[in-house]
Amino acid sequence: MVDDGLLGTHRQELRRGTVVLACLLALRAPEYGYALLKRLDVAGIPSDANTIYPLLRRLEERGLLASEWNTDDTRPRKFYRTSPAGDELAAQLMHDMTDLTASLQALQSLNGGPHR
Amino acid sequence: MVDDGLLGTHRQELRRGTVVLACLLALRAPEYGYALLKRLDVAGIPSDANTIYPLLRRLEERGLLASEWNTDDTRPRKFYRTSPAGDELAAQLMHDMTDLTASLQALQSLNGGPHR
Repeated sequence: MVDDGLLGTHRQELRRGTVVLACLLALRAPEYGYALLKRLDVAGIPSDANTIYPLLRRLEERGLLASEWNTDDTRPRKFYRTSPAGDELAAQLMHDMTDLTASLQALQSLNGGPHR
Repeated sequence: MVDDGLLGTHRQELRRGTVVLACLLALRAPEYGYALLKRLDVAGIPSDANTIYPLLRRLEERGLLASEWNTDDTRPRKFYRTSPAGDELAAQLMHDMTDLTASLQALQSLNGGPHR
């Protein structure tokens, strides 16, 4: 029996590595922080504000996102958009992710079925 | 242009989350630490001794691996094997991993092609 805490911890570890990739992919269409969270949630990759807001700033500092203030609405909002460098990184990480999944699936079938 | 350091960092982050899963899958056939490293390398999920050895001890403490000394050879070696609880966790994490990859692929095709 795997207790829920243990499953949660490992599940979170697995997800953590994919948040950057998810943001870079999602922000090819510009969006502001809170709406990005909703977009990720709908896509099946839920995150939270404490993770996303600092991450957006960090990715912008690294030149992977660009930002622009939108003042059309009554409340001005900072919109983020994936930069060409961010696009390139996303493509490489997506490639890695697909490779990793294939490697794990091969490992899974290699030793065949459940416990021996 | 994405510099190599940046790519390396994010790539590592992506891989880190999958090491536990890779070990649990690989150790359904018992193996000792160093040979596990080689097995993972062949499977396309390279890791290193500084990661694997403490991880094996931690997974054993949590009941996800069982161990047994093999003294048949001149040099006794501790063999690890995935426990039934470890098998169960691996199945759930593999399921998560497949879901995550599918979600990311959907995100990728959603905003269609490269930078806009």
